Amino acid sequence: MQTDVPVTDRTRVRREPARGRYDRETVHGIIDAALLCHVAFRDGDSVFCIPTVCWREDGHLYIHGSNGSRMLRALLGGQQACVTVTHLDGLVLARAAFNHSMNYRSVVVLGAFEAVPDDRKAASLDRLMDHLAPGRKHEARPGDANELRSTTVLRIALDEASAKLRTGGPQDDEADLSLDVWAGVLPLAVHALPPVPEPGITRSMPDGLRKWAGA
Amino acid sequence: MQTDVPVTDRTRVRREPARGRYDRETVHGIIDAALLCHVAFRDGDSVFCIPTVCWREDGHLYIHGSNGSRMLRALLGGQQACVTVTHLDGLVLARAAFNHSMNYRSVVVLGAFEAVPDDRKAASLDRLMDHLAPGRKHEARPGDANELRSTTVLRIALDEASAKLRTGGPQDDEADLSLDVWAGVLPLAVHALPPVPEPGITRSMPDGLRKWAGA
Repeated sequence: MQTDVPVTDRTRVRREPARGRYDRETVHGIIDAALLCHVAFRDGDSVFCIPTVCWREDGHLYIHGSNGSRMLRALLGGQQACVTVTHLDGLVLARAAFNHSMNYRSVVVLGAFEAVPDDRKAASLDRLMDHLAPGRKHEARPGDANELRSTTVLRIALDEASAKLRTGGPQDDEADLSLDVWAGVLPLAVHALPPVPEPGITRSMPDGLRKWAGA
Repeated sequence: MQTDVPVTDRTRVRREPARGRYDRETVHGIIDAALLCHVAFRDGDSVFCIPTVCWREDGHLYIHGSNGSRMLRALLGGQQACVTVTHLDGLVLARAAFNHSMNYRSVVVLGAFEAVPDDRKAASLDRLMDHLAPGRKHEARPGDANELRSTTVLRIALDEASAKLRTGGPQDDEADLSLDVWAGVLPLAVHALPPVPEPGITRSMPDGLRKWAGA
């Protein structure tokens, strides 16, 4: 087991521990391949789980949204939250129903979010643009003062984080190997379909977007 | 706004309310198109967000796992949890950085999970098999008594649930429409890649799996 990000009692993978990874390269790579995370937080007596766009800068995961967002307001209080990024990589079909599984890569981050100061918001949102499409920050019209003022950017340190992943084929019991049942993996992946330009757009899609073609 | 599932203060979509949907057909359809959900729950002072396989039977969303799972044990206590299903349908690229968005379909379910009784577990896990691949429950070796005993199946009612979705192109400000910037949608979708059979498997992939080919 590689350990690089410190492992805590909250982030140690207990179920299927051999699938746990704690090295920075794995944790960062899974986040960098994602557009969305799910954020779990408390609001009053309730727990919520909300999907939102995420990106990484060095040792932090970033999210953003409108100042009025219930989630962002709740997170600004400094509560302990959880952020999860998941990629589903395939259906794992075993000969026995019980041994069916999924191939996946996930990261769970625990901690409190902090607000990105006003004077660093524009640079941070440029990083989001870079994540969506390298170079796009030089093409799109940048945010003006009002747009920046109405946007909250939050970040959470990747200090208490763990990755969990499964790869490979099914693990059937020896006694089931001779059964006449199809077994294997059906790999699943996110792919971009042909772009749909707005009416009147005649230039071709920017090269930066091609990174998602085989995402 | 269609209302069919009762709308509560917890499930009413407040941010971009026009994207909210509360009809059963939309909520069920988004869940049925998913293999994974994210479950947010409390364990001690911490909030966790864990991805897991899900399926629907009538008015409930189901999850399952090992009896030893920390998540399932925490949920069995009857706490208020949150389950979220999200499909990312595309990158929405506007002429202005601020107006970039995503097309998506999501469902948020609030409530408490309950255990599926032992005598109904096998039938319920058959439904999971049907969800993964129609007909596969007749092919794979069914769970034996030990396997069933070691598995916990939980369900949550879809009574307090809301869907949120965005479709279509970017909504740029009038003043930005003449900018020479590519704008449009890059649709994203999950696709199956060619199946990878286990060594020694010569029969072809079951037809039931083809449902994910254009998932």
